[in-house]
Amino acid sequence: MTDLPMISPETNNTLTTINMKPYVLGIDIGGTNTVFGIVDARGTVIASNSIKTAKHPDINDYIDELHTEVMRLLEAKDAVDKVAGIGVGAPNANYYTGTIDNAPNLIWHGHIELAKMLQEKFDLPVAITNDANAAAIGEMTYGAARGLKDFIMITLGTGVGSGIVVNGQLVYGHDGFAGELGHMIVKRNNGRLCGCGRTGCLEAYCSATGVARTAREFLEIRSDKSLLRDIPVDQITSKDVYDAAVKGDKLAKEVFEYIGTILGEAMADMTVFSSPQAFILFGGLAKSGDLLLEPLKKAMDKNMLSVFKGKPKVLLSELKEADAAVLGASALGWEAKRI
Amino acid sequence: MTDLPMISPETNNTLTTINMKPYVLGIDIGGTNTVFGIVDARGTVIASNSIKTAKHPDINDYIDELHTEVMRLLEAKDAVDKVAGIGVGAPNANYYTGTIDNAPNLIWHGHIELAKMLQEKFDLPVAITNDANAAAIGEMTYGAARGLKDFIMITLGTGVGSGIVVNGQLVYGHDGFAGELGHMIVKRNNGRLCGCGRTGCLEAYCSATGVARTAREFLEIRSDKSLLRDIPVDQITSKDVYDAAVKGDKLAKEVFEYIGTILGEAMADMTVFSSPQAFILFGGLAKSGDLLLEPLKKAMDKNMLSVFKGKPKVLLSELKEADAAVLGASALGWEAKRI
Repeated sequence: MTDLPMISPETNNTLTTINMKPYVLGIDIGGTNTVFGIVDARGTVIASNSIKTAKHPDINDYIDELHTEVMRLLEAKDAVDKVAGIGVGAPNANYYTGTIDNAPNLIWHGHIELAKMLQEKFDLPVAITNDANAAAIGEMTYGAARGLKDFIMITLGTGVGSGIVVNGQLVYGHDGFAGELGHMIVKRNNGRLCGCGRTGCLEAYCSATGVARTAREFLEIRSDKSLLRDIPVDQITSKDVYDAAVKGDKLAKEVFEYIGTILGEAMADMTVFSSPQAFILFGGLAKSGDLLLEPLKKAMDKNMLSVFKGKPKVLLSELKEADAAVLGASALGWEAKRI
Repeated sequence: MTDLPMISPETNNTLTTINMKPYVLGIDIGGTNTVFGIVDARGTVIASNSIKTAKHPDINDYIDELHTEVMRLLEAKDAVDKVAGIGVGAPNANYYTGTIDNAPNLIWHGHIELAKMLQEKFDLPVAITNDANAAAIGEMTYGAARGLKDFIMITLGTGVGSGIVVNGQLVYGHDGFAGELGHMIVKRNNGRLCGCGRTGCLEAYCSATGVARTAREFLEIRSDKSLLRDIPVDQITSKDVYDAAVKGDKLAKEVFEYIGTILGEAMADMTVFSSPQAFILFGGLAKSGDLLLEPLKKAMDKNMLSVFKGKPKVLLSELKEADAAVLGASALGWEAKRI
């Protein structure tokens, strides 16, 4: 499997010497935007730019535009021949096969030979993985997980993603798709419908969407006053719930208590699997501070098997959100090999 | 971490040459018996014997007797100087620290420096791990998991144990205690009390004890006829339930359906973590055949996230139960290093 890049400032010189190329290219493909950047071995984003992912229904047109814009950036930084490899984070991307398969949030459906196409276009080695795994690699290489060999990265965005690191290696599983902790079942009975078609998944509760859904449920089944009642119920966002909670709104605060508790319970269950030294939370919802973290830590502690009690830390990502995805993807570029 | 011994017949000669010693010693410490055996690189148990674990309240006396009996066995097989190392499987044993801590099923409580004590007594390198991990290593080295790099071993005995292998390596976690899947919470509300002090753990349902508890519950809340009603309710064992089910008893069959379903649901959740190629079931309950496997596979499939659907196989252990624990422990002996 992969030898993850354990890049620390101490080893930069060695790495640079071996590679003879001082930079990698990180590409983060999201449903809306594709952000790319030139990154050095210390994790500095030298320069970055973005294009619209969904502009090109034909993947070949997309790769043409990406290549043009990347080359423009490389030329501007006099870095055209200084790139060791390309690392890509993308939804449903498979590290083993280099493909994207049936990504619901991307405009290209079916089977995409992404790594192969990029390698041919750029004439550089390419490694790809899903976005949560890329975030975990970024955190391990440059962020809050530096020096940690066992941790679980949880990305709390529109959905819930995860990247699991065991003994310093990302867990890909036998098919490259491991680490889908957003789809642990947290409500076995009467659970909410999840985007995956099943019911009761963690993602249906502990994502930004889950916060808004919880608020709508609470507003419907309760009659107490809330600032959220001023907003049309189907337009409530997680940001609205957060803003109301910060203003002291009781119902909004209880929404965070509810989802924080569910996430804490789930994290206690994750702990019996891999006994991580830390959980690292990333994404918009992770910025809710103690509104989320207090009930989360309380539930995690209450539900923790005694041998693990008090052991796993809960940390917040140390990467700037704007850079994190590109940094994470880029870290994969150091180990990319030609297919 | 560990480099697990990937011993296959092809590499035996090399291994033997490097080690210069053709045997390892496997020791399986259970609450009642300690079984030990001399094992060669092909996984043949050359000879084995056992002593009573609980006979000696003082661990030093226990180790004295174990040493005496092991030496007797080695002498009988002319193998005294032919042992490369000792591998030990024991409840609550920690691979990293070489210690047993607070094992509820052992007569010695508190902190036991087992690896160190054995190494001093035998003057051989010693590696220890818990019994379920030892079983996983045994299965990987000699059994149903040969050639598998990602699998989960589930031991269904008095309790539920597990050994998780990711990318060919056992998952120990940062503290050496990972892989406690028997303590995943499967009933968040109104769950049964587990031996660990919490409620709703997998082990409270899907162990031999869980089968008996389920039968008692069913008998109490239902009024239909059952062969099990002939047995005093507090004396019903999992064997009684199995025997009744084999005879076609409806209630007894539904006990297996109930626990098979819970285990299958839990295994679908385990899959999102590490995407194993196979689950390997081991222990008394695993021998219930289709009584357990049919509802288990049905529930696993029904609850599986679509990307994993149909992928993880459910296999039964291929090791003879009498040999399995010793074989698993012994496999660890090849990699044992002096502390």
